[in-house]
Parts: sequence; structure tokens; C-alpha cells
Amino acid sequence: MLASQAMIRPVILSGGAGTRLWPLSTARSPKQFHALGSAIPMLAETALRVQDTGFSSPVVLGNVRHGGRIVDCLAAHGVTPDCIILEPEPRNTAPAIAVAALAARDPDEILAVLPADHLIPGADALRAVLIRAAIAARAERIVTLGLKPTGPETGFGYIRAGEAFGDGVHRVEAFVEKPDQERANHYVASGDYFWNAGIFVFRAGTMIEAFARLRPQTLDAARESLARARTAQNVVSLDAEAFARTHAQSIDYEIMERISNAAVVPVALDWSDIGSWAALWDASPKDNSGNAGGGTGEAVFIDVRDSLIHSTGPAVALVGVEGLAVIATPEGIIVIPKSRAQEVKAVVEEWKRRGRSDLV
Amino acid sequence: MLASQAMIRPVILSGGAGTRLWPLSTARSPKQFHALGSAIPMLAETALRVQDTGFSSPVVLGNVRHGGRIVDCLAAHGVTPDCIILEPEPRNTAPAIAVAALAARDPDEILAVLPADHLIPGADALRAVLIRAAIAARAERIVTLGLKPTGPETGFGYIRAGEAFGDGVHRVEAFVEKPDQERANHYVASGDYFWNAGIFVFRAGTMIEAFARLRPQTLDAARESLARARTAQNVVSLDAEAFARTHAQSIDYEIMERISNAAVVPVALDWSDIGSWAALWDASPKDNSGNAGGGTGEAVFIDVRDSLIHSTGPAVALVGVEGLAVIATPEGIIVIPKSRAQEVKAVVEEWKRRGRSDLV
Repeated sequence: MLASQAMIRPVILSGGAGTRLWPLSTARSPKQFHALGSAIPMLAETALRVQDTGFSSPVVLGNVRHGGRIVDCLAAHGVTPDCIILEPEPRNTAPAIAVAALAARDPDEILAVLPADHLIPGADALRAVLIRAAIAARAERIVTLGLKPTGPETGFGYIRAGEAFGDGVHRVEAFVEKPDQERANHYVASGDYFWNAGIFVFRAGTMIEAFARLRPQTLDAARESLARARTAQNVVSLDAEAFARTHAQSIDYEIMERISNAAVVPVALDWSDIGSWAALWDASPKDNSGNAGGGTGEAVFIDVRDSLIHSTGPAVALVGVEGLAVIATPEGIIVIPKSRAQEVKAVVEEWKRRGRSDLV
Repeated sequence: MLASQAMIRPVILSGGAGTRLWPLSTARSPKQFHALGSAIPMLAETALRVQDTGFSSPVVLGNVRHGGRIVDCLAAHGVTPDCIILEPEPRNTAPAIAVAALAARDPDEILAVLPADHLIPGADALRAVLIRAAIAARAERIVTLGLKPTGPETGFGYIRAGEAFGDGVHRVEAFVEKPDQERANHYVASGDYFWNAGIFVFRAGTMIEAFARLRPQTLDAARESLARARTAQNVVSLDAEAFARTHAQSIDYEIMERISNAAVVPVALDWSDIGSWAALWDASPKDNSGNAGGGTGEAVFIDVRDSLIHSTGPAVALVGVEGLAVIATPEGIIVIPKSRAQEVKAVVEEWKRRGRSDLV
């Protein structure tokens, strides 16, 4: 028992299928399988970040349609997962975390939930703060990392920190939804608000108890989906009928916002959720003109400023523009001002409207 | 003899390898093999334009490396060439026209030289003016079409028309090189200047005599390259050693500017040389926002004006820009303001500098 109590078990959530990074990220090949802001795929990098003393091998949860992809991606980068748990359909984070808690070796195991599609260049700092969070987790708190804002972002949820428990751990006063610009300015100025990065640390037993109290139906369904799962080597395919009975919602909404033992560890972390092409540009190394080139396709910039080319195939030349993102795969291309990067969604909707779901 | 005298023999020059339309037009797959401003490849369309009463089957000249491509392109669109003459290397238009004149059935055959990479939507008007030009050609004149300028273009050479011979045929006063803007304004205002579109009509014998007088070495080398050619069915591969002894220059420079029997037939023709991506946009049908989409790849415009997408593969989405050209093939992509379309050349140079001749 000592080993599992002393070690932190990474739980990597790889079930997302964001479309804000079209054409690179698609339902078939979502963001976490791509190298963004790094040389290796985000999923593998997430696992490698916590492949160190104090951490046991990770549990990886993802969609069943990406099962082979997950296995290959981890193997290709030297990661041996404890197990891979495949969800029959995407049902947001709460069911996945319930399953992960139930699958733990024993109730005292400390789990660290990590989204598979975030960029965190400073792995040392991440591991250090997870280890600090684990101490609070052993005291029955469900701990979330609170990232110190680097600007008044309106695209993230915020956590308001309350009284300090000591060692930099605070009670959570409130989870606050994405603010307008004025509120965001206020939050950042106050110093009490932190970005919610979806990184949680807790005892398996604490989380199971929280589900039992607040969402017993999801817990029961999750338990049954595990009991009836098909297992081949270390790949666990959850039972579809049972899993479908979980409540498809986020862990924030289902648990974190409803408990009194939520804690936050504020931390200054070099972090990006790469939530848009503008965010990838922000996180990328740039030349003297502010241009960033990524992907496997070669890029040429001629008289261009503050722009991004990311290509997984074609060679791309950009001439005489400013603030533009050009993203290319063999199947699709988008050209969009970085300042309008949120409108990638409109493009995805338009392809669907035209019956081109094959593209997204 | 009567048949060959009465009919006009189209001579289609398909030897060009323009790089101003990168990434679509490359050394391997130049412009004339692509459908631009039309549903079928420019080479085939050029041939079909003169597949009508009064015209015999065409002679097509092109580079030996594109031999199979020429055969296939013509066959796919129902064109049966009289013959295809393959040049061992590109040596500009004078050697090609010398070869075509020597290959004529008899000296009285009337040849109409047509570039394979121009867009002329009104084929009727073209045939009519060629037939008018042929009358002057029978009177030993070497006739060039003079297109009535639709604006003070600085990208074309001009022809100054002199005294009229009758039936709309004029003596050529001068061939004028590409003018600056002030001169172009003056040329257009005067009404005496016409664009030189590289379309020539002449008796084979007249052209041979001109070469014999002015460029005997090129004529001899052309004759030898034909005499030693390898012929398979109707495909004639010119002898490389002999052809290399021709002087690699344009017919304008070698012959037209040096003779006294040059004539010009002014004509208002809907014409474009599609000499840049801006020119393709000009020549394309546009939606209410001034956007043109071409090629086989689907295009989405969201809040875009006066822009062009041309893709031969990937689906392309363009958001929130104005006056931009986005051209995509599976191998390469360019994003460039239409107003800077001439700078495609700089992109091609940059790829060469990087050792990426495979791309251009």
C-alpha cells in the first residue's frame, strides 16, 4: 500500500476532439495527437512530463475510436502506460474522472488529472506543484491548480482563492465562468483569481465519496462500465450501455463547484491550452519579424509580420501580410487573421452545413 | 495544293514553363496543362478553339519532358493533332516557329501560331480574325494580332499600327517593349497601340524566307533537327544536338522587329494571358463580394472580399481578409495579396535558393 500512497498516478484525459484548431484537429485526428509548440505529440509530451521520480505510470483515458492511435503514440515516444481506458463515446470529464478513481489500485492512491492537450514547457515546475498538491490531497482535499494569469484573458474560467491552509494551498472561494473584459481586468488586478487549467489532484477515495454524495448515478454507471469492460492486455474498453448512463458533464460542474473541500494551489506556470491558432502563435518561438513556422511542411515568409504557418504537408509561402495564420494539411487549409481565430468554429460549421463532415 | 492553301494550320506553342503561377504551374506541370478560367486544360481549350471549318488539325510543339502529357491532354478532350513536335529543351519561340514553318505541307500553307496558355472566351471572334489575317498572309505579310487595350497595362509589349492596307490590316510601325505607366496611358489614349499577344499568321514560305535572310543559322539547325528527328506515329522528337544550335530567342526579337512586311490586325478580343494570380481573378466569375473560387478543391469564404481561392486538392477556408489570393496544390501553397502577385517570382527564387527545386 505504501507505494501507491507515496506515488502520484497521472490520469491523462485524451478524450477531447476540439475543432478550434481546424484543419489540423479533426474528429478523426484531434489536437492531442499533434505536435503543437513542441516536437512530439501533445499526448506523449503530457505523459513524459510526469515520467519521473514520485510518479507512477499513467492511466490514459480516450475515445475508443482513437484506441490504436493512443497505443501507438505512447509507444513511439517511450511511454508505457499503466493502462489505457477507452470510452465508447465522449461524455466530458466527470464520467472519465469517476472511472479513473474507481480504477485506482486502492482508495488512498493519489491521482493527478492532466488534460492531454496542454503545453507546459516547464515540466519541473509542474511536477513540483503536483507534489505539493498531493500533500493537500492526502488531507482529503480535492485540489485544482490555479494558474497565475499572465493577462486579463476572457477565454478561461477563473478560480477565486480564499483562506490559506498553509504551504500555498488555499480554499476555493468560487469557480467563476469565463468573464467579460472588464471583469477579467478586475480579476487580474485583484491577485485573488487564477486560471482553471483542468488539472486536479485528489485521493481516489475522496473523489469516489464526492461522486457517491453528489452524482451517485454517474458513479454507479461508471462502476458498471468498468465491471463489464473488455480487457486486452492493458487496454480496457468500457461497456457502452453502462457508460451511456453517466451524466455527460464537466468535473467542474458536477463536483468541484459543489464541494466544500475544494482547494487551489496557485502557481506561476508557463502554460498554454493552445486553444486557438492565435494561442499557438503566442506559444511558439518567433523570428525577428514575429513569424512562427511549425509542422513538417517547409515555410517561406517574404515581407510578413506577426504571422503563423503550420503545415503537416504542403510547403507554404506567405507574402506581404501581417497577423495572419495559415494552417495546412493535405486535406484542408485555413487562412485567417490571428485576431479572428475564434471564427474557425464558423468554418467548421460551414463544412458541416455543406455535408463535408469528412473534413472536420 | 488547294486544300492546304485554303485551310489555316494552327501551330500551338506549348513549350512554356511559367513560374508566375506557382504553386500550380511548375516545371513538371506548367500552366498550359491546367484548367484556368475554364473547365478544361488551357492546351486542350486552345486546340478546341480552332477546331472548326477553315482550320486543319493542329501542330503542337512542346518540351520532350511533357510529351506524354501533351498526347494525353489532347486525347482526353477529343483533339487529334496533325502532329506533336517535341523540343529537346526550351529555346523560346523563334526556333519553334522555324521548325513549324519547315514542317508545313508546302510553302503556301497558312500557319496560325497560338500560345497554348492564353484564355480567349470568344472563340468565334478569334477564328474570324485569324481568317482575316490569313488573307493578308497570302499576300506575303507576316501578320500579328493586335489586341485593343482594355486599360494602360504595363505588363505587355505594344504594337504601333501604321498605314492601313485595307480590310483592317495595318503596317506595323513598331514593336514597343513593356512601357512605364505614363507611356502606357499615352499608348491607350492614342488609339494606335495594341497589345502583342504572340498570335501570328503567315505563309510557311514567307516565314522560311525571313529566317533565311535574317537568321540562317537557326533555320539550318531547325531543318537538321527535323531531318534527324525520331518519329513514332505522329510524335516527332527533334534532334537535340541540331536543335541546340538554334538561337534561343523570341520570334519578335529575331524576325518580327526586323522585317518590313510585318502587319497587324487590330481586334477587340476578350483575352487574358493569365499572367499572374491577379489576372486569373480578373478573368474569373465572381460572387457578390468579388470572390472567385476555382480548381477541384472546395472553397469557403467568410467575410471576405475581392479574393481568389484556387485549389487542386485541399479544401480551403478563407476568413476576414480582402484582396488576397490563396492557391493550393497537394505540394505547395501560396498566400499573397493580389496587388503583389508579381512577387510569386521571389517565392520561386527562395525555394530554389533552399535547394527545393522539386517544388518549382
